[in-house]
Amino acid sequence: MTTAPSPRSLPAVWLRDNCPCAECRDPGNGQKLFQIVDLPPSPAVREVRETADGRGLEVTWAPDGHLSVYAHEWLAAHAPGEGERTAGDGRTEADKTLWRAADLEGRLPEAEWEAYGTRPEVRAEVLDSVLRLGFALLRNVPCEDGQVLDVARTFGFVRETNYGKLFEVRVEPDPNNLAFTGARITPHTDNPYRDPVPTLQLLHCLTNAAVGGDSGLVDGFQAAALLRDEDPRAFEVLAGTPVPFRFTDARTVLSAERPLIDVDPLGRIREVRFNNRSIGTLRLPADRIEAFYEAYRTFAGILLRPELQLDFRLSPGDCLIFDNVRLLHARTAFAENGARHLQGAYADLDGLASTLSVLRRDQQRAREAFLDELEALFEGEGAQEYLGEEVTMAQHMLQSGARAQAAGAPGHLVAAALLHDIGHFHGPLHGRDLMEGHDNRHSHTGADRLTPWFGPEVTEPVRLHVAAKRYLCAAEAEYRAALSEASVHTLEVQGGPMSEDEAARFEAGPHAQDAVAVRRWDDQAKDPAAHAPDFAHFRPLLRGLLRARTA
Amino acid sequence: MTTAPSPRSLPAVWLRDNCPCAECRDPGNGQKLFQIVDLPPSPAVREVRETADGRGLEVTWAPDGHLSVYAHEWLAAHAPGEGERTAGDGRTEADKTLWRAADLEGRLPEAEWEAYGTRPEVRAEVLDSVLRLGFALLRNVPCEDGQVLDVARTFGFVRETNYGKLFEVRVEPDPNNLAFTGARITPHTDNPYRDPVPTLQLLHCLTNAAVGGDSGLVDGFQAAALLRDEDPRAFEVLAGTPVPFRFTDARTVLSAERPLIDVDPLGRIREVRFNNRSIGTLRLPADRIEAFYEAYRTFAGILLRPELQLDFRLSPGDCLIFDNVRLLHARTAFAENGARHLQGAYADLDGLASTLSVLRRDQQRAREAFLDELEALFEGEGAQEYLGEEVTMAQHMLQSGARAQAAGAPGHLVAAALLHDIGHFHGPLHGRDLMEGHDNRHSHTGADRLTPWFGPEVTEPVRLHVAAKRYLCAAEAEYRAALSEASVHTLEVQGGPMSEDEAARFEAGPHAQDAVAVRRWDDQAKDPAAHAPDFAHFRPLLRGLLRARTA
Repeated sequence: MTTAPSPRSLPAVWLRDNCPCAECRDPGNGQKLFQIVDLPPSPAVREVRETADGRGLEVTWAPDGHLSVYAHEWLAAHAPGEGERTAGDGRTEADKTLWRAADLEGRLPEAEWEAYGTRPEVRAEVLDSVLRLGFALLRNVPCEDGQVLDVARTFGFVRETNYGKLFEVRVEPDPNNLAFTGARITPHTDNPYRDPVPTLQLLHCLTNAAVGGDSGLVDGFQAAALLRDEDPRAFEVLAGTPVPFRFTDARTVLSAERPLIDVDPLGRIREVRFNNRSIGTLRLPADRIEAFYEAYRTFAGILLRPELQLDFRLSPGDCLIFDNVRLLHARTAFAENGARHLQGAYADLDGLASTLSVLRRDQQRAREAFLDELEALFEGEGAQEYLGEEVTMAQHMLQSGARAQAAGAPGHLVAAALLHDIGHFHGPLHGRDLMEGHDNRHSHTGADRLTPWFGPEVTEPVRLHVAAKRYLCAAEAEYRAALSEASVHTLEVQGGPMSEDEAARFEAGPHAQDAVAVRRWDDQAKDPAAHAPDFAHFRPLLRGLLRARTA
Repeated sequence: MTTAPSPRSLPAVWLRDNCPCAECRDPGNGQKLFQIVDLPPSPAVREVRETADGRGLEVTWAPDGHLSVYAHEWLAAHAPGEGERTAGDGRTEADKTLWRAADLEGRLPEAEWEAYGTRPEVRAEVLDSVLRLGFALLRNVPCEDGQVLDVARTFGFVRETNYGKLFEVRVEPDPNNLAFTGARITPHTDNPYRDPVPTLQLLHCLTNAAVGGDSGLVDGFQAAALLRDEDPRAFEVLAGTPVPFRFTDARTVLSAERPLIDVDPLGRIREVRFNNRSIGTLRLPADRIEAFYEAYRTFAGILLRPELQLDFRLSPGDCLIFDNVRLLHARTAFAENGARHLQGAYADLDGLASTLSVLRRDQQRAREAFLDELEALFEGEGAQEYLGEEVTMAQHMLQSGARAQAAGAPGHLVAAALLHDIGHFHGPLHGRDLMEGHDNRHSHTGADRLTPWFGPEVTEPVRLHVAAKRYLCAAEAEYRAALSEASVHTLEVQGGPMSEDEAARFEAGPHAQDAVAVRRWDDQAKDPAAHAPDFAHFRPLLRGLLRARTA
């Protein structure tokens, strides 16, 4: 997070347009309540004051005296000039991970249907793969008729087309599309003759016993980026030429005229359309036609490079979800007397992105709620309890975190030091039980409690911080001599100093050194005279270490 | 139709890519069967021959000897260089009729729901209005819950969004959108935070008894075109700046970054997005932000010009269908205690355009089928029957049409002369009945038969051509003297010469002069020695006069 800029350095009309007050935005739904022409033509900042709570700035506007309050956090996150690095809406090449086959072979973005349904973080990962890589595979989706629609509804809305809500990909008599034959289908995007084109496609494999019928995917953004590198003039021609696509059958006459490579106003690749079957008759002056065909052939050549095409075979139960304005899909020919049956459906990227954002927002909220809970422990129970030391439990842990920080320890060890005794709170046995002779195994309780939120680099030093004491007592005579009275008291309950064998096994463990480091800060953090920062000081550090909740 | 160009003058790769042979295109579904890289790198025309039927050209290609046959008609219609005048996909300003309020006041594009449902040409007109003007109104749509979805399904597919398949526009408690309050809503497009944005919206009025709540529409393409005229720099800024739009509620986090004015690669206005409520926080370098806000304010000012906004009030039973990527819609505030209830739905322009194309294709086919039927009459029955003259009925009518043409008559009179005796065919009484003394009123039968296909400028001279004979017999002694024997015979059955009163009334009729002209060609068209062109000669002329079938 960068420092919040001064309001006077920001474009005034932009700042005023973003006033969050209840007159300017509906407090309920967040919608803007004024029109741009309602603002004074040249608003100017008249006065800036820090807000009473220190969390933002109060701006008084000239000429109309309007009052706006901007949170420092909002200013830092939104100030213009941060530049083009902005996430945007996630739809251009700037927000994608472009790939070639070798980048993904053996590492397909995939998940089990059951886990996808029950674990939000698995769902988030699948949806993120579709946005970032352009596709994901769900495995063991029930092979039931219409199931593909249920898959689509997990993240968005089915887009009905002339092929129906759901379409059957199998050999059909009198097919209106070559997809419904056993023919080889070269890499293409679907429905380029639609505008708006369906931006997502799902293909759910029910049967694939035919000889042939393997699947292929090509990253069209990667191919377009290669074209731009290798032949910038051809890229310009394709981005600048509307191409007619056409589909007709007894009930349908569709046509759309869009470029093969669509770039956004900043020139970033945003959509790719490519379909040799439905490209129509170009009408342009002759010289432009020739330039187009040259570029078209060059682009087709890149799209057909074997190193770009990821090949795999759909098995019954697999459901492929892919970005139809980025990835091209293909299939090898198959024997028409063999059984191959997919069910397909279309949907849209915006709904999928919304579902992912809501998942992340919920995760984010859960993370903040967890941090709130920790803060409450530090400020409530922890600030009142003493465990045989002259400092409260909270003071002890805060001092411990502060010592780690002062020692220049990495963030995960600061967090481990700060939270090492968290198991004393609300554990199955209270800290006081330990003092009364029962080992509440607070190191394990604490580590387990942190496991849903932090990786092992945080949880394992917490888990081992008692073992580290027993280890140090065995390994360093002077360590044992310096222990506090309370620590000596609990040592016996905890098993006493390690044997040589125990110590050797401990040393060989992956987190032993970290646990020893945490232990030393722990031991030094019992100074009633020391002043440690409060929990809020550590909150951003903890936030940065929190992971997606895994259950 | 322009003359077909020579294949040698056309871009060779383009021509080859458009080869219609069964190897190149699936004869069933018309899909292209090869990829662009499958063509020889530099195909060249080796030989060109006229086809045996004279309807096209046979091209032999170098180097591979491939054979393509192109119809003259196709070449004339598709040859490049005809330029930018191409219809495209109908989505840019090039294919729209831009309007201001005054252009449409009192002349709203509207139709009765019942006629829309039963008369294809009414349906075609409504759909055409949506494409050309951006909207149409259906009147007296049943005020039933969910009816709006049935309206959408008459031309396309409902696009489900976070607001549901159908959304209720009425005052809601705790609304997630200001649309669901009684607030004034200024001109805007819907769902700019979706990509793909729904391109069509329907609003069906069930109740509108509240004070206020009037509707307004603004042609966003017109406003954008005005901006381009008045401030080209501002237009460029808006077309070149991706703008973040955002919507969030408990279940939704949508964002899209698209320009307020979207132009196609040729710079033509293609989509307009404008929504003061959901525009998000722009992140750009400061100087670009200021340029954007200036242009944004200017554009907003144009959009709010009163002369641009068409105001009207939806009554129960009205269903408004409008282009959501072109038209902005608005409503005045209304009393929240008043009853106002609309049901809305989204759909897409591509489906609507397809439905219209299919309607037109069907109409086109029906027209060709009608011409086929006429041709069969001329070549079958008409070529065998004589009605007391020395020429067949077909010869007589063809001579009559040819005489009109030789006299330089306008197309509709050539058609009337050609078809004047069509009532003798398949009428309730056959031509022979007339010769036997029964008036088969063939002039009326013929005119009625032509009525679904031609305007009164064709049908009324046909209807009056017998009356014209009775008139001329009364008005010109020498006319009666020159009549053929058969004509004299039938004159009595037809009522004899007109009385003075009858003649005066006839003369005063709007088509009398045309009917007299047709009558004279009729009388001159009984020459067994004359050579007249066949029906095929007249077919293009008739095709040009045919109108959409009106029943």
